[in-house]
Formats: sequence, C-alpha cells, structure tokens
Amino acid sequence: MNKQQLFENIKRKQSFLCVGLDTDTKKIPQHLLKEEDPVFAFNKAIIDATADYCVAYKPNMAFYEALGTTGMRSFEKTIHYLRTQYPDQFIIADAKRGDIGNTSELYARSFFDYLKVDAVTVAPYMGEDSVKPFLLYPESWVILLALTSNKGSNDFQLTEDAHGEKLFEKVLRTSKEWADSDRMMYVVGATQAKMLRDIRKIVPDHFLLVPGIGAQGGSLAEVAQYGMNDHCGLLVNSSRAIIYADKSEKFADFAADAAHNVQREMAGYLQDVGIIPCSI
Amino acid sequence: MNKQQLFENIKRKQSFLCVGLDTDTKKIPQHLLKEEDPVFAFNKAIIDATADYCVAYKPNMAFYEALGTTGMRSFEKTIHYLRTQYPDQFIIADAKRGDIGNTSELYARSFFDYLKVDAVTVAPYMGEDSVKPFLLYPESWVILLALTSNKGSNDFQLTEDAHGEKLFEKVLRTSKEWADSDRMMYVVGATQAKMLRDIRKIVPDHFLLVPGIGAQGGSLAEVAQYGMNDHCGLLVNSSRAIIYADKSEKFADFAADAAHNVQREMAGYLQDVGIIPCSI
Repeated sequence: MNKQQLFENIKRKQSFLCVGLDTDTKKIPQHLLKEEDPVFAFNKAIIDATADYCVAYKPNMAFYEALGTTGMRSFEKTIHYLRTQYPDQFIIADAKRGDIGNTSELYARSFFDYLKVDAVTVAPYMGEDSVKPFLLYPESWVILLALTSNKGSNDFQLTEDAHGEKLFEKVLRTSKEWADSDRMMYVVGATQAKMLRDIRKIVPDHFLLVPGIGAQGGSLAEVAQYGMNDHCGLLVNSSRAIIYADKSEKFADFAADAAHNVQREMAGYLQDVGIIPCSI
Repeated sequence: MNKQQLFENIKRKQSFLCVGLDTDTKKIPQHLLKEEDPVFAFNKAIIDATADYCVAYKPNMAFYEALGTTGMRSFEKTIHYLRTQYPDQFIIADAKRGDIGNTSELYARSFFDYLKVDAVTVAPYMGEDSVKPFLLYPESWVILLALTSNKGSNDFQLTEDAHGEKLFEKVLRTSKEWADSDRMMYVVGATQAKMLRDIRKIVPDHFLLVPGIGAQGGSLAEVAQYGMNDHCGLLVNSSRAIIYADKSEKFADFAADAAHNVQREMAGYLQDVGIIPCSI
C-alpha cells in the first residue's frame, strides 16, 4: 500500500487508528482456549469487530514467537485472513529488527516476501546498512524507532551530542535521507506527545506510528494537536485498551465499542483541521 | 551455564570460538536439499564436525525466520540436538531483540523458557526496561549490542555527547549497572579491534562476543591482543568462513578443518597470556 492509498483510507474511514494484535493466551477470554487455534480465533473475532474503525493492524511478533511454531502459524493465518478479507488494511509487523546487511536481507525476505506484510518496525542502532534491505521490496515500508513510549527511552534516545542534538533527532535527520516519506515512517511514543512539535520540524511529511495511548497513558488529543500534518501523518496504535476491553463471550462487541469510540474522537480531530468535512 | 563454567570450557578446549549457524538453504551443499529437513541436516553435520573446536554456537534467528514455521522447526531441532548431545556448548540466539517491558518479557519467555538457549543478543536503543526482562531467568544471559561490525555502526554508535563520550561507550557504562559480568556480555565487532583497548577500560571483566572475523575481515590476532582479559573474556564468532568452507559432500570435513585451524590459533593466544599452559 502506498502513502496516498493510506491517506485515502484514513479519510474514507475517518480514522487513523491502528489496532495492536498483542494476543496473549493468558489474557484472551478463556472460552476460546477450547478452539483448535485460540490465538487465531481471537484475532479473527477482533478483526471482524474492529475493521470498520481502523486503517491498520499491528501484531507484535513477540506474542507469536513466545508460542513457538504454533504461534507462528497463528500469525501467518492472521496475516492471510487480513490480506484476503480486508485488503484495505495496512499491516505492520512490530518486530523491531535490525542486523548486518546480509541478515537484514533475510528478515526483509521473511516479512515482505513470505509473510507479505506492508511494514516492519526496525531499530536504528546499527545504522543505514541494517535498515536499507527492508526497502528493497515493492511498496515495502520501514517504520524506524525514534522516540519510544517506555521509561527506558530516557537512557539513550535523549542523549545530546556536542551540538545539543538528541540521539532520536539525529536518527530522524540522518535516516530521512535513506528513503522518503513514501517508504519510511517513525515510531514516536504518545507519552512524549509534546515533543511531536519539534519532531514535525525535522520530518514534516512522514507518517508517525504512535504507540502509548490507552494502557500506557498517552493522550490522543495531544498527539493529534502536536503531530498531525496536512495528510494526517499519524497512525495511532491502541492494543490492550481495545482487544482486552472485556473478557466475556461478548469480548468482540466490547472491542468494537472501544475501537468505535476512538474512531469517533479521531474523526473530530480530522474535521478540526479540515482533512474531512464537518458533519452537521 | 555460568561464567566460571564457560571459562572452564574455554581452558579445557583451548578455544574461545563461537560457530555462527547462519544456515541459508541457498548456500548449503545441494545434495542436502533432498533431506526431509535440509537446514537441520546441515546444522547437525556442522555441529558434529566442529563441536570439539568451539565452546559456543550462535544461530542467527533471521535465517530460520526467513523460512517461516518450517525454519522455526529446524531451529528448535537444532537447539534440542545441542542441548542433548553437547550440553557443554553455550547457545546464543542472535536475535537483536528489544521492546517495551511487557513485550521483552514475552521474547524472554520464548528464548529462555521455551527454546532454552543460554543467551540472547539484545539491542540497547530502548533502554533499561527493554533489557531487564531477559535477565529474569536462572542463568540467562543478555548480550547487548555495543559496537557492531558493520559500516552503519558509524551512523549513531560513534556519536559523541557533550562530554566527548561516544554512544556505544555510554551504552557500556550505563548498562553495566543493570547486571554484572555473570549475566551480561557485549557485542563488539572485530572490525573495530583497536577500540577494544578503550572498551576494556569500561568493562574490564565482561565477556565480549566478537563477530566480524573471517568474511567480514576482522583480525583474530588483534582481537586477542586488545580484548583478552584474565579469564579470556572473549567469544569470537565465525560463521561463513567455517560453515561454508566447502560445498561438496565433504563440507563437514572442511568445516572441521576450518574450525580446528581457528582453535589452534586461539590456543596460541591463550598460551601467550598464561591462561593455559604452553605445549612443549
């Protein structure tokens, strides 16, 4: 999916919500455990319930890898289900990979050629040749970690160099030369929303993938206020607050309500800046 | 395996060689492709041929993930084979993971509880809470990326802060407070061997996992000269130069010779500093 198609989907659905499929067998409704593949059964129900309200899904690989080959089969079935039933959804493998060139090539082959996702999250520490192999596939996207939503983001990402530039700012400024905003996005945590204003000075046109609203405490209003650009430029992720909104047999209905509530709030922010017309 | 056991293995085998199991179906001898599981067949033959000359194996996850669930089964069989047939080998999952705390917990569960490796490589960008979950398992090790062997290591790892401290130095200085040298190692590329002298000033006691000799051009002599400490403190990895030493049906014999040659050179360096007695 290219940038213009993503923007069209955002306008059409009046939403820039990404639903995080962080599916943990310890947290899903217990009646699903009698299914042959509980993880896929949960994902399928969540997807069917929320697809009208979001433009992207982001399974985090850790949750699938933790279950070994069984988990990877659930992951593959989930991607296949999305690809065939909801082809307008942007699929992000949240993998935070990054290795020397010949190894990153293999990760890229795995994600884009074999699993056929749209985007992979990549860690910047190893530099350009660890990132570029992910850009070799048609319409493949890299979503590079810049400023993350966790406490440990303070340890290194905010370190200032001799010119007062923070490491995450250097990551943005350096890496935007590796690919333009049609192929690269950045992870910027919602818990650092006020820094989005400065981030927009460095990367005005790029999409930002924003985790950290909901369970992690970030504010959607602030993210929209400081981070939105004229083609929206935001994918805001919510995982736990949507997929674990309820643990009963009606979990999917509650997930739909939670996603719908976020979508309605997002529609308001899109109206505020004139990206979609105001409803009367 | 704890640090003392690893050191005892190094002395007994007169080797600090780690063999990288970067098994690519495009590079293994073609006669193996008729096996039911070519990747495992290759790994088993390489392990049987080289186990006398090394103290560790390091499968890089990318090579297995690129093959989907089939590859992960090959990976699991390889780990199981090592665990049961060669219990004195230190097993490193080269995964370069790192995510927010609850997600790193799942990666840790996957590697230490399910796959039962000794160590996982972890990227430092997301800071302390992304690393610590990997230290919660008995005798689990984190091998944190510090200074990597690729060209892109220049992009961010060498950035100096206002006090002249390079990012990788800050990573070493900060993270050594998170766990002592019984639980933490560092990746330092052999292509930057002369910097090992300065690195030893920051982490005198830690083991260093050193990739980059062989195909990547680093010098084993320099690594030993600048990096060895009084309990060796080095695991030097070689992948392609050993496992792809030959592509005929005799590939395992050539791999054994290649590993034996490295081991003999290593024995010399261990003798030079008195860790093992000189042969007469």
